[in-house]
Amino acid sequence: MITPDTWKPATPETTAEAPARPGPLRLATQLVRSFGQLSLLTNVWTGVLFMLAVFVGNWQAGTFGLLGAVVSTAAAYAMGVERRTIDLGTQGFSGCLTGIALYVFLGPHPSTYALTIGGAVVCVLAYSALTAMVAPWRLPVLTAPFCVVVGVVLTAAPAFTRVWPGGSSAALPLAAVPGVEYTWTDLWHGFFANISQVGLSAHWYVGAIMLVGLFVGGIRHGLAAVVGSALAVALSWALGAPPAGVAAGVYGYNAVLVAVAMGGIFLARTVPNALYTMVAVAVTTVLTAALNAYFAPFGGRTLSWPFIVTTWLFLAAAASLPQIRRTD
Amino acid sequence: MITPDTWKPATPETTAEAPARPGPLRLATQLVRSFGQLSLLTNVWTGVLFMLAVFVGNWQAGTFGLLGAVVSTAAAYAMGVERRTIDLGTQGFSGCLTGIALYVFLGPHPSTYALTIGGAVVCVLAYSALTAMVAPWRLPVLTAPFCVVVGVVLTAAPAFTRVWPGGSSAALPLAAVPGVEYTWTDLWHGFFANISQVGLSAHWYVGAIMLVGLFVGGIRHGLAAVVGSALAVALSWALGAPPAGVAAGVYGYNAVLVAVAMGGIFLARTVPNALYTMVAVAVTTVLTAALNAYFAPFGGRTLSWPFIVTTWLFLAAAASLPQIRRTD
Amino acid sequence: MITPDTWKPATPETTAEAPARPGPLRLATQLVRSFGQLSLLTNVWTGVLFMLAVFVGNWQAGTFGLLGAVVSTAAAYAMGVERRTIDLGTQGFSGCLTGIALYVFLGPHPSTYALTIGGAVVCVLAYSALTAMVAPWRLPVLTAPFCVVVGVVLTAAPAFTRVWPGGSSAALPLAAVPGVEYTWTDLWHGFFANISQVGLSAHWYVGAIMLVGLFVGGIRHGLAAVVGSALAVALSWALGAPPAGVAAGVYGYNAVLVAVAMGGIFLARTVPNALYTMVAVAVTTVLTAALNAYFAPFGGRTLSWPFIVTTWLFLAAAASLPQIRRTD
Repeated sequence: MITPDTWKPATPETTAEAPARPGPLRLATQLVRSFGQLSLLTNVWTGVLFMLAVFVGNWQAGTFGLLGAVVSTAAAYAMGVERRTIDLGTQGFSGCLTGIALYVFLGPHPSTYALTIGGAVVCVLAYSALTAMVAPWRLPVLTAPFCVVVGVVLTAAPAFTRVWPGGSSAALPLAAVPGVEYTWTDLWHGFFANISQVGLSAHWYVGAIMLVGLFVGGIRHGLAAVVGSALAVALSWALGAPPAGVAAGVYGYNAVLVAVAMGGIFLARTVPNALYTMVAVAVTTVLTAALNAYFAPFGGRTLSWPFIVTTWLFLAAAASLPQIRRTD
Repeated sequence: MITPDTWKPATPETTAEAPARPGPLRLATQLVRSFGQLSLLTNVWTGVLFMLAVFVGNWQAGTFGLLGAVVSTAAAYAMGVERRTIDLGTQGFSGCLTGIALYVFLGPHPSTYALTIGGAVVCVLAYSALTAMVAPWRLPVLTAPFCVVVGVVLTAAPAFTRVWPGGSSAALPLAAVPGVEYTWTDLWHGFFANISQVGLSAHWYVGAIMLVGLFVGGIRHGLAAVVGSALAVALSWALGAPPAGVAAGVYGYNAVLVAVAMGGIFLARTVPNALYTMVAVAVTTVLTAALNAYFAPFGGRTLSWPFIVTTWLFLAAAASLPQIRRTD
Repeated sequence: MITPDTWKPATPETTAEAPARPGPLRLATQLVRSFGQLSLLTNVWTGVLFMLAVFVGNWQAGTFGLLGAVVSTAAAYAMGVERRTIDLGTQGFSGCLTGIALYVFLGPHPSTYALTIGGAVVCVLAYSALTAMVAPWRLPVLTAPFCVVVGVVLTAAPAFTRVWPGGSSAALPLAAVPGVEYTWTDLWHGFFANISQVGLSAHWYVGAIMLVGLFVGGIRHGLAAVVGSALAVALSWALGAPPAGVAAGVYGYNAVLVAVAMGGIFLARTVPNALYTMVAVAVTTVLTAALNAYFAPFGGRTLSWPFIVTTWLFLAAAASLPQIRRTD
């Protein structure tokens, strides 16, 4: 059973094991789960496949992700935060994603290593702080610690010559160019890239490996990702989003996260809940375009804020909708 | 009596009637009230006059507003939200204003119909979500569901070629041009336009009809609107706001909303409360200019955020000010 | 003892004295403390030295600060807010800093006097409103009333010809220019300017006087400021922040505020708390650069938001960190 103060589903055997010190196997489990938590799952084999997928996509991204996971896990032990969140990979996860993101956006400079280590430590504090902040509404922090830490670092980076050696920023295309046509490749690449972008990769085969990992974690999670990603591609096409962005997964990774989180974890398995999740998937796709525009002028990053905001609002709304039931 | 969980004043007869299914008359009342709620009023004749005013200003805006109100009301029934909020027009209102706003900003394209229908459904969810979000402070959601939904759609629109066919955005004039003089026409047009802009119209005669509707709803509401609008015009002139903007009601519709909400609904009828409301009117006028600047770089819209933020802060402050009394 | 509903430390004698009306001495104490509260201290001699420092830096800034403190204090009496916050200078403080900031950013025009008076009144309301807003988390409002009021006025100013006579905005340099070298003067000027910028002055000798004031308030407060300022200078240098900005204290005043607030007031005197405060100092230095970028596109101002956000998050996180203990 999910309790309000943890918000991450635990498999029964996880809750049972709680020894005093982490042996090598336990530590390995924590680190592997840090990768599996990219989609909020705690299944160890999901974690193994996700870790594999990240390294296949780019071995340096994988190295930075592993470094972040190790540092966050160590910092969480040192600070004495609740062991259960360490065992489930919730603590290591933020550092893992922070390492990957800083590598992707800043490149493999010495300063990026230093920022990954510092950022991974701060992620543990951000997890505790944000957990307290959303407590009045009984909401999970989701990927917010990562989004806050990486968002601040990337927004601050241009002011620091040793962090931003190039001195230039990669601009995102925000406005659609009328007349550009979709190809079939755009659509099916987008379908898989929506999943791989959860780990900040645009390779379709990375998404395919991660999709296998989701099905290993549970049929329900795999199906949620498939439906969420397909809906996002279809809606993006219907609205006329830039084909290159759709093919790269830019408009759909939040939809995948929403689908897995709401369809597979936080809501009970009912037809109204499934429809409710589909509305949330549509909302987060539009919200992704809105937040891309919001962050552009000051050099912030959308990251997974659309997923976080959508899931928070839909879970909060559930309280006054009699047909929607949360799992807790 | 206003209870903390509804926050919309109900006339006694409203609370009494609560049959199981909506007959034609009840449905008509709900839709008419959806228009009256533009100024937070539930009086049916106020609603009739507001509906008339919107159609007189632009029949297509009225059509989109009615479409939005119908969809939101139907969605609220389908989702099983509290009936009382449907009867008072609180649910239909968000969809109504969303329809009007999407027509005004995007034009009468087929995609605008689709977005109005989708937006009106999401407004009902946003109402439930935001009600939960502001619950710790016992605050009303006011027009926030509308502002969130329309704000996101308009910010996202440029990324979607089928939503934003023109591919261009109407820029707001943000900085005042020194040396431009006010005329008497600017001032009295502005006085009425401050009221009509509550329904996103800049026609002075639309404002005049709506002012009659406010007086029909209660002398107090009409007087609040008159004083609020006059104060906003006077302050805008004193500060040197752009005359064209003042004449179009850009700097005063939030003042009218604040005056009606605080002066007529949420605060008791006392002299300190009246002075307190006048300070709030001045604050929201300055805040309007600040939020215009805030939203400009990313293509967001000010809408009635200044009214929402001002009313929230002044109602929250009332708790520690012994001379200010809320009506609940 | 600090109680959750005041959050400002009171010396025992302060709590004891509570006569009905303010005599000249009591009023003078309130006004002097309004200056001392620039660093959250209530020691009267700290206040005297801070007041001296502000006037030494710029007598007009001092005059505007005093005007703001007088108006806020009077408004607080008139509105009947809790006397204790008036006696501690908490109310006068926001008006004081508002007066200084409006003078610094807008110049000594007649409109600036009017805005200082209006802003100082609104500061008292903002204090009450924000206290209610952060109540669910048991957090202090810190300098938020000032930041909200001045931020709104400065963001709105370009829309009003009588507020912004020049019609132009002073642009902040946001991106570092590679190749510019630091000098020793940059570093030691920066060390003191980090302290003087708490009162919006860039003069090193103003910072030196204020540092004396901090030590007079308590060895601990002085040491916290020294360590916080030195850390901020070192980190800015290590990251490659613009030397001119570091010399002017732009990247370090939030670090000083965080160090004094967390190191000297809100956390108990323990080694883990000291380390925790140092992490917060590093975080707020990076956050300052991020918020500079955030506010630039719409003409907002960073002010002491980095201090506020950092302190809020670190105090909130403390709840789940067993080694960190708050003083209340």
